[in-house]
Amino acid sequence: MINVCIVGATGYTGGELVKILIKHPKVKISSLYAKLDKQPVYIDDEFPSLKGKIHLPCYNFNPAKIPAGAEVAFLAVPHTVAMDLAPLFIQKRIKVIDLSADFRLRDTRVYQNWYHKKHNQPHLLKQAVYGLPELNSSRIRKANLIANPGCFPTGTILGVVPVIGNTTGSILVNATTGTSGAGKKASLALLFSECSDNMRPYKVFQHQHQPEIEQELSAVAGKKITVRFVPALAPLTRGILTTIFMKLNKTITPSNIIKQYRKFYRKSPFVTVLPYGSFPQLKDILKTNNCHIGLKMAGKDLVVVTAIDNLQKGAAGQAVENMNIMFGLPREMGLT
Amino acid sequence: MINVCIVGATGYTGGELVKILIKHPKVKISSLYAKLDKQPVYIDDEFPSLKGKIHLPCYNFNPAKIPAGAEVAFLAVPHTVAMDLAPLFIQKRIKVIDLSADFRLRDTRVYQNWYHKKHNQPHLLKQAVYGLPELNSSRIRKANLIANPGCFPTGTILGVVPVIGNTTGSILVNATTGTSGAGKKASLALLFSECSDNMRPYKVFQHQHQPEIEQELSAVAGKKITVRFVPALAPLTRGILTTIFMKLNKTITPSNIIKQYRKFYRKSPFVTVLPYGSFPQLKDILKTNNCHIGLKMAGKDLVVVTAIDNLQKGAAGQAVENMNIMFGLPREMGLT
Amino acid sequence: MINVCIVGATGYTGGELVKILIKHPKVKISSLYAKLDKQPVYIDDEFPSLKGKIHLPCYNFNPAKIPAGAEVAFLAVPHTVAMDLAPLFIQKRIKVIDLSADFRLRDTRVYQNWYHKKHNQPHLLKQAVYGLPELNSSRIRKANLIANPGCFPTGTILGVVPVIGNTTGSILVNATTGTSGAGKKASLALLFSECSDNMRPYKVFQHQHQPEIEQELSAVAGKKITVRFVPALAPLTRGILTTIFMKLNKTITPSNIIKQYRKFYRKSPFVTVLPYGSFPQLKDILKTNNCHIGLKMAGKDLVVVTAIDNLQKGAAGQAVENMNIMFGLPREMGLT
Amino acid sequence: MINVCIVGATGYTGGELVKILIKHPKVKISSLYAKLDKQPVYIDDEFPSLKGKIHLPCYNFNPAKIPAGAEVAFLAVPHTVAMDLAPLFIQKRIKVIDLSADFRLRDTRVYQNWYHKKHNQPHLLKQAVYGLPELNSSRIRKANLIANPGCFPTGTILGVVPVIGNTTGSILVNATTGTSGAGKKASLALLFSECSDNMRPYKVFQHQHQPEIEQELSAVAGKKITVRFVPALAPLTRGILTTIFMKLNKTITPSNIIKQYRKFYRKSPFVTVLPYGSFPQLKDILKTNNCHIGLKMAGKDLVVVTAIDNLQKGAAGQAVENMNIMFGLPREMGLT
Repeated sequence: MINVCIVGATGYTGGELVKILIKHPKVKISSLYAKLDKQPVYIDDEFPSLKGKIHLPCYNFNPAKIPAGAEVAFLAVPHTVAMDLAPLFIQKRIKVIDLSADFRLRDTRVYQNWYHKKHNQPHLLKQAVYGLPELNSSRIRKANLIANPGCFPTGTILGVVPVIGNTTGSILVNATTGTSGAGKKASLALLFSECSDNMRPYKVFQHQHQPEIEQELSAVAGKKITVRFVPALAPLTRGILTTIFMKLNKTITPSNIIKQYRKFYRKSPFVTVLPYGSFPQLKDILKTNNCHIGLKMAGKDLVVVTAIDNLQKGAAGQAVENMNIMFGLPREMGLT
Repeated sequence: MINVCIVGATGYTGGELVKILIKHPKVKISSLYAKLDKQPVYIDDEFPSLKGKIHLPCYNFNPAKIPAGAEVAFLAVPHTVAMDLAPLFIQKRIKVIDLSADFRLRDTRVYQNWYHKKHNQPHLLKQAVYGLPELNSSRIRKANLIANPGCFPTGTILGVVPVIGNTTGSILVNATTGTSGAGKKASLALLFSECSDNMRPYKVFQHQHQPEIEQELSAVAGKKITVRFVPALAPLTRGILTTIFMKLNKTITPSNIIKQYRKFYRKSPFVTVLPYGSFPQLKDILKTNNCHIGLKMAGKDLVVVTAIDNLQKGAAGQAVENMNIMFGLPREMGLT
Repeated sequence: MINVCIVGATGYTGGELVKILIKHPKVKISSLYAKLDKQPVYIDDEFPSLKGKIHLPCYNFNPAKIPAGAEVAFLAVPHTVAMDLAPLFIQKRIKVIDLSADFRLRDTRVYQNWYHKKHNQPHLLKQAVYGLPELNSSRIRKANLIANPGCFPTGTILGVVPVIGNTTGSILVNATTGTSGAGKKASLALLFSECSDNMRPYKVFQHQHQPEIEQELSAVAGKKITVRFVPALAPLTRGILTTIFMKLNKTITPSNIIKQYRKFYRKSPFVTVLPYGSFPQLKDILKTNNCHIGLKMAGKDLVVVTAIDNLQKGAAGQAVENMNIMFGLPREMGLT
Repeated sequence: MINVCIVGATGYTGGELVKILIKHPKVKISSLYAKLDKQPVYIDDEFPSLKGKIHLPCYNFNPAKIPAGAEVAFLAVPHTVAMDLAPLFIQKRIKVIDLSADFRLRDTRVYQNWYHKKHNQPHLLKQAVYGLPELNSSRIRKANLIANPGCFPTGTILGVVPVIGNTTGSILVNATTGTSGAGKKASLALLFSECSDNMRPYKVFQHQHQPEIEQELSAVAGKKITVRFVPALAPLTRGILTTIFMKLNKTITPSNIIKQYRKFYRKSPFVTVLPYGSFPQLKDILKTNNCHIGLKMAGKDLVVVTAIDNLQKGAAGQAVENMNIMFGLPREMGLT
């Protein structure tokens, strides 16, 4: 049994991690931490749907009390917080899967630009592996520190990467997300009264996930890739529908483009490429770790639509997938 | 033109007041106040749907700057705050329509019990008129201080009062409301992620509107009336559906009970009693000042269902209706 | 492995059965039937979230092709249809779990009154066991034909039955349901545009589940119990929140009433009685077979609120629970 | 008073027309028609929110009974139906505002391609004016037959047309709509249970509004414009948020692009160009005839987002705007 700690267990992502891991046949959750006014808080009081399944206290994180025997820590904390926590685990030889953005951007200047704080672990950053298993599974296997991808980057990169070598010009992305993506925080903008019957774009061309997408796509393409990223909020709790427009450098037949995508994902248990001209809908992938991809061409214009659950493939599910790989388990374990 | 001030203009109720009053043919809004970190805030920046209709600054309330010429002030502030503001207007001979609970409960001990603060204006409380026009229109006409009814009391009292003399035992109420009833405040419990796909009862038998309902029904009945009140929150922005069970002291035929209700409301422009056995739905009354009532009997058991918009008949609409009565205008003016 | 057939596999309840049963460690689904214009339809085309988990064709039901070896048939078909199908299985010694209403009402005249068709299997009706495991588990164990309870009766009976001996007068019920309760059928009244931002009561005192509730409660009480039942539709896909008002024949202390409920359900794995004065919310039980119960007294007035998922404990989940009991398996198998 | 007929009064668009026109100071609704099983149906029975405001019967359309004195007919009927009705009014010198697609596409072959029926009024088609007042107000003034624009074309064209002369390559559009856009028809795909918690693209590159957008933009540009159109359905009743990506042939400064848009719309009372980098949200324009436009550039990539209400500016509101222009009234009359 893998001995697991979770830091940030009471947020939406942390709660999702708990829900997945209590069903995982090879995991034992040993400690839960959260930022609490009053401690302990029992996790099944925080998430009553867990009643009868797990009854474990959450405490404020205290590095002195990291349990002996812990093998992996999930950090489901806000960005700029995780970089202070990761080394505390790493130095005890506990693997870290960081669900924040702190170890995703390899260039510390880019990090500081977008997250407004100087990165204080540049050495650790060099060891971090970007945890998108469809791209990096062999490096994930050997990693001690995983930068678990952002929700929007997951939905976007999976839609683009099989044809990244064929694209020309900017990659144009319109991604619509549910409200849980913003985390469990009291905010006027996230009230039911504000979000119901409403849709709004936000952080247009300014979302912190844009450089993350560009970094990963550029690395695969071997050239600088420019992404124009327009996120929007819809009256959904979960799910991201990502619509991607690309210009290809040649026309490709429907059957060939489908082949290209399916070949790329032939070993990816969680990615399904739909038949040409069929498009995904959120309800088919909600509460799963799956990514469904639909695509269609018109001339050299390609549109790709991907659907993921932001708390699963976009966060906690993918984190567990990374853990499975790091510990030599089947990638799907606990996730289907 | 009636010269109007609004205190608390940036909340949901205050915003609704502005939306109603800018279309009112006999009203001029002269000043807007709100609790602001930074002032002024323009009302059409706070509610962009008002762009092009009104462009007026909101300031923090300052009694020294109450405009000369003001004739009526709407207080759309939290309870326990309004009782400090009302006398500042009253002493300048400005009429007050208080949308908070501060002047609704006539017994200061009951007020203190439910609102956890000693009432500091017992003298003013004696002048206040409970502003339910269906009950008190002649007293409203002469009032200088209106206690505008709560949203749940409006929906409940209108459903009960025509048969209050025929009831025996407790009046049992299950009222479901949308999230705007809780006001525009950042709260985890009111997040879209928490309210969507969810329903929950709250403050069962402990809601502060229960004594208000009992007080008004007892006054009409001339005896103590007991109400058991169970509110619940549903994934709605606006609207209250109130289901009321009563035991009558005799059977009444369908046609007679309908007659009794319709006779009671024959002069009430905003109340519609549906045909026997027909029941209201929220979407027929949303964004109107109307109350639809449906009812049905089985033996001596009577069920009544009422539907109102919590921000209109349950708050701002009824407040304007009260203003119309106080200023000798047709009750419906600006409200249809 | 239990060899299972499902008739009506493409509806909401049928789909939920498939979703539960493919994870059940002791079940093999052998045949799926549905009312189809064109056959076969693959179940994972109908419910794409099943892709990769089950790929089985649905055909129109043909009694000549009931597979040899079938041990139990779930009938997820409309009422008045099931009574024609049940005998076809029973005569082949295949157990039947009927999720329709056809074998729930023991009096054929009552059935005809509420379902507008003469019951054509009165003999079979006598063998049917009402499949509410909290009441009838020993009879379910030996049954060949289960009348799986309606969704509203499940939520109501579980809330009432522990104190049924202490009640006087009518039991007053206001139950709010999501739209999946009406089944997967094209209907103007169930359109998103009609249901969103809306709530409406329907079939007040005329819902066909009212006599079912009265029958079962009367059987337990040993006297005629009268129920006044007011269902309402809310903007929810799944879930039923049932608010029940009862008058008791004596006052009971908070701790005693909780004890009485918990004692009644001490062997019921799916029922949780919350602490006194705490009330359930839908999101804690959605997509589970659980029923959460909250209660509170005021004088002799008792309010009980229950929360269930209409497709799970209110239909498919409870059906599988019944199957488990009939086949000597642990009641929770495949359901947690 | 303008004497008005409405054909198709019981649909969502027809109902919206009635709601607008009963408040219009210069309109008298003389006749309502709809496709009815049983006639007459009173319009306020169909839309109970109209109770007390209008009580007029709807009949099946009968050309023999077009009232004497009718001056304008609104056709809110399905496409392929309107082309049979329009000539019946035109020949009686009654102006027609057709809200269907039947007179929008000037090339009858294109019409037949997309709407699968041969156009039977090519002569009338030549007289028809495309009723987008921001482009064609002077021709609308003199028209007898208005082809009222589609909802998606309105939201898209208004976002593109001020810079159409500066664009190169394909115009890429991702437009998300609420469910009322599909009309009031019983459909499994439009059930609350199917649309809530869901989003799905549909008719990707195959939506019948794509050629309409291309036709109008090409006409303004004086060259063939190619549009790639990806519509999607979100859990909204009303509203369309349209995200448009364009490549410009030069960089334009933020202040200049805003100037270019504002200059284009300086006489358009319903279009608001937001400050550079600000983007619209649906709730600011719901139930209004307004279009809000936000935009931002990155290099030569321009993204424009527009928000309209599909039943108002996207259908009934714009139809009334066209009527106002045709009858020499202020464009905003009855619409603010």
